[in-house]
Amino acid sequence: MFESAELGQKIDDATFSKEVVKLRDALLQAQYELLEKKSFALVVLVNGVEGAGKGDAVNVLNAWLDPRHVKSHTFGAPTEDEAQRPHMWRFWQALPPKGEIGILFNNWYTDPISCRLRGDIDAGELATDIEQIRQMERMLIDEQSPVLKLWFHLSKKAQGKRLETLEKNKLTAWRVTEEDWKTHKQYDRLRKVSERVLRETSTGEAPWIVIDGSDDNYRSVTVGRAVLNSLRRGLEQADAVERAKRRHAKTTNGKAKGVMAPLVQTVDTTRILTDLPFKERLSKEKYATKIEEVQGRLNKLSRSRHMRDHSVVVVFEGMDAAGKGGAIRRVTQALDARYYGVIPIAAPTDEEKAHPYLWRFWRHIPRRRQFVIYDRSWYGRVLVERVEGFAEEAAWTRAYTEINEFEEELVEAGIVIVKLWLAITKEEQLKRFKSREKTPFKQYKITPDDWRNRKRWDDYTEAASDMIDRTSTSSAPWTVIEANDKQLARVKVIETICDRLEASF
Amino acid sequence: MFESAELGQKIDDATFSKEVVKLRDALLQAQYELLEKKSFALVVLVNGVEGAGKGDAVNVLNAWLDPRHVKSHTFGAPTEDEAQRPHMWRFWQALPPKGEIGILFNNWYTDPISCRLRGDIDAGELATDIEQIRQMERMLIDEQSPVLKLWFHLSKKAQGKRLETLEKNKLTAWRVTEEDWKTHKQYDRLRKVSERVLRETSTGEAPWIVIDGSDDNYRSVTVGRAVLNSLRRGLEQADAVERAKRRHAKTTNGKAKGVMAPLVQTVDTTRILTDLPFKERLSKEKYATKIEEVQGRLNKLSRSRHMRDHSVVVVFEGMDAAGKGGAIRRVTQALDARYYGVIPIAAPTDEEKAHPYLWRFWRHIPRRRQFVIYDRSWYGRVLVERVEGFAEEAAWTRAYTEINEFEEELVEAGIVIVKLWLAITKEEQLKRFKSREKTPFKQYKITPDDWRNRKRWDDYTEAASDMIDRTSTSSAPWTVIEANDKQLARVKVIETICDRLEASF
Repeated sequence: MFESAELGQKIDDATFSKEVVKLRDALLQAQYELLEKKSFALVVLVNGVEGAGKGDAVNVLNAWLDPRHVKSHTFGAPTEDEAQRPHMWRFWQALPPKGEIGILFNNWYTDPISCRLRGDIDAGELATDIEQIRQMERMLIDEQSPVLKLWFHLSKKAQGKRLETLEKNKLTAWRVTEEDWKTHKQYDRLRKVSERVLRETSTGEAPWIVIDGSDDNYRSVTVGRAVLNSLRRGLEQADAVERAKRRHAKTTNGKAKGVMAPLVQTVDTTRILTDLPFKERLSKEKYATKIEEVQGRLNKLSRSRHMRDHSVVVVFEGMDAAGKGGAIRRVTQALDARYYGVIPIAAPTDEEKAHPYLWRFWRHIPRRRQFVIYDRSWYGRVLVERVEGFAEEAAWTRAYTEINEFEEELVEAGIVIVKLWLAITKEEQLKRFKSREKTPFKQYKITPDDWRNRKRWDDYTEAASDMIDRTSTSSAPWTVIEANDKQLARVKVIETICDRLEASF
Repeated sequence: MFESAELGQKIDDATFSKEVVKLRDALLQAQYELLEKKSFALVVLVNGVEGAGKGDAVNVLNAWLDPRHVKSHTFGAPTEDEAQRPHMWRFWQALPPKGEIGILFNNWYTDPISCRLRGDIDAGELATDIEQIRQMERMLIDEQSPVLKLWFHLSKKAQGKRLETLEKNKLTAWRVTEEDWKTHKQYDRLRKVSERVLRETSTGEAPWIVIDGSDDNYRSVTVGRAVLNSLRRGLEQADAVERAKRRHAKTTNGKAKGVMAPLVQTVDTTRILTDLPFKERLSKEKYATKIEEVQGRLNKLSRSRHMRDHSVVVVFEGMDAAGKGGAIRRVTQALDARYYGVIPIAAPTDEEKAHPYLWRFWRHIPRRRQFVIYDRSWYGRVLVERVEGFAEEAAWTRAYTEINEFEEELVEAGIVIVKLWLAITKEEQLKRFKSREKTPFKQYKITPDDWRNRKRWDDYTEAASDMIDRTSTSSAPWTVIEANDKQLARVKVIETICDRLEASF
């Protein structure tokens, strides 16, 4: 992959000066168009060999663009906060919002390459890392964020020469460290490892651009052109998507409509939700003893030494009035207030809307020892957003995969995921709605939305069945809990959490 | 302060059961009213002696409230991220948004008290810390966020007994550590130090509530009542403010109007801005040499070893078209993209609106070595918000003090603050507006807003003069830069930054 970047490409000063005037104008115009339309975010990944001018190239780029809307991030050794979360967490935090350009130094490629170089991971582990990177980039591209991947290259000879030149000059000698010479000695091995990584992550939508770093003019112009191309292609694509949407809106006569499942009917799971017996009951007396017992069990588990390497994510889903709030309260009663957070999922804030769908859930991923309880969750995309047509079909169908990959990352980082579907019957829901309307301090809980959603009961059941079918994995399975009897449901919720914790420790 | 909390207050179980039913109902109602109105956030500070039941009390509170809208935070030893910023930074990050309740364990009182206890700080330093705490709390109260301060107390005897009881029981013995017994031995000293701190921070608006921790019933009920009172008082106050606003809107005939300075005229500063000579010029040739020279100087300073303990905040303010963007670009050209960020200040996001005014600026406070450049800043409150009437008079007049205190905190934490006012004449602005309208890729930069603001030129000058007068402090002074000549201005901007850095190192 590096051959053409070792030819010693050059641009003379006269050509450079002429080219740059036009290039800068075009870059600024494209950037302002992006800023105005806010249709996507451009992610620029900067990698390469030492001494190939990564820092200089980005400085030039910043000077050419409006730096107020370019954010650079560099990632060193993980901080305490970062080390306690899945390793992709810190990159998620740094993703630029729509309209902006984010430049990531030492990004998600740095660790896999240097770990493999040091022999800390084997070829298989590297393959796993590469798969995770591919998932990340596919997600970004699906969210219409182009990923521009720049690899700055120098031949071994050129690198050696550059280090020598820097060392000879008094003013620049400080820039050459022992580490740099060590890196130089490992050049051949780095070349081999990084070539493999580049090859395997060079996809049609996000190919690597290898840039010869030996000539300043050539490097700057190449980087500028690459950014310009990405911006323009992104803008064109966004326009095309816009046009397609308008056309679609016209043919459907301007009416928003719920886009219902084109999926193969999954009869079996639907039955799981519709054929529940709802027979078991728990008396008030038995409940009083039982709930204390399971809360005690949960409390003990939450203080277990195993929690030093674990954290817990509990997801509550279910129809309106299924008893999520009440169940959550029984869970938190068993926990220490210092170590849990409850995240109620409502409409996204404008900052959340400007980022990829999963960003707002990544924000709250817990550190070690912590419990995070989601009252509704990322499954909104394949439930309410699907049924009400808030998400397009393409978005919610790909969400199944995105969600499975997301959860897999969490599990790999030691997070225990407990996913609970609180199931009630349509009759029980009606009873609860009516009783809420009568109780003064529960009235806030019943809104016209609830009555509207109730009309689509069957669609929601269908969507929930598909969801369980497609996202119940061995590492993060769904548990369906019969919740017509509140007492019984609360006990089972806590029992399920305890069982999952015990199985994971 | 602790006498009445040492009387061994008790509530018997029968009274407790009866009281709790009413209390929980009332608490939930008040919480939902807060949630619906989103008029303020309640901050609950939890402090006290070991063994007095802080954790238990908050668990009870969480069980009584809807835990989905209560966020608990506990602060341990500062993480790397936290240690590199002013020490109040982490508390700012944890402030709850409007509508929510935030419970802070180990909050801003913990360090001053324990440092003084260990003798790490003297009485004078403690007084400084207390002053900073007072500022924080005054700011919260001014922003209509009640601060509820709970101190959980136990007499020395009761503490000793409690530790012994815990130790004797197999199930709870693990909860007593050596550290606890050490704390017990220091009881008298802790009592003395904390009494002083409590006395000096017990203000009319945010008094301390000292709670006898010896009886579970009494403690729970007292905490519940205290939270209920704070919620109710906060809701009443917010309603009163609402009513006053509506009344005011009626008397001013419903029209929004710019609220102009009732301040004593500050003739001298106005003259600074209006009587600038605007004579000096810099030729293109001289500029080319000069800008490289000062950029080189800035680059060297940015790589200085002193930057290990420092970071830099540069604030750009000035009339529209004063050349802020161009100047910022010349500054960033001299810096390494990995170590700076530019924050353009536009309308606040909805998350920012839900927090106290300065929250959105605290968000971006740099870690060590970093430069953060604000394109417009917190001074918006005393400029555009004052002139256009977006902020009420009470809010923008108190902002001068809030801003001075904020900047003082930054300076004390090793942050170098450079505040630049780019001054142009009214004629020069007109020329630039017109030229922008003609240049295709600059058109985006000129909006109807700009023409509207221009009509209020004198009001803006007046506001800027007051601002400079009231917020130019010795540790964070304003520098007025004549910017009719862009070249000259850019050089002076960088020179000013360099001078301030050198003076601070």
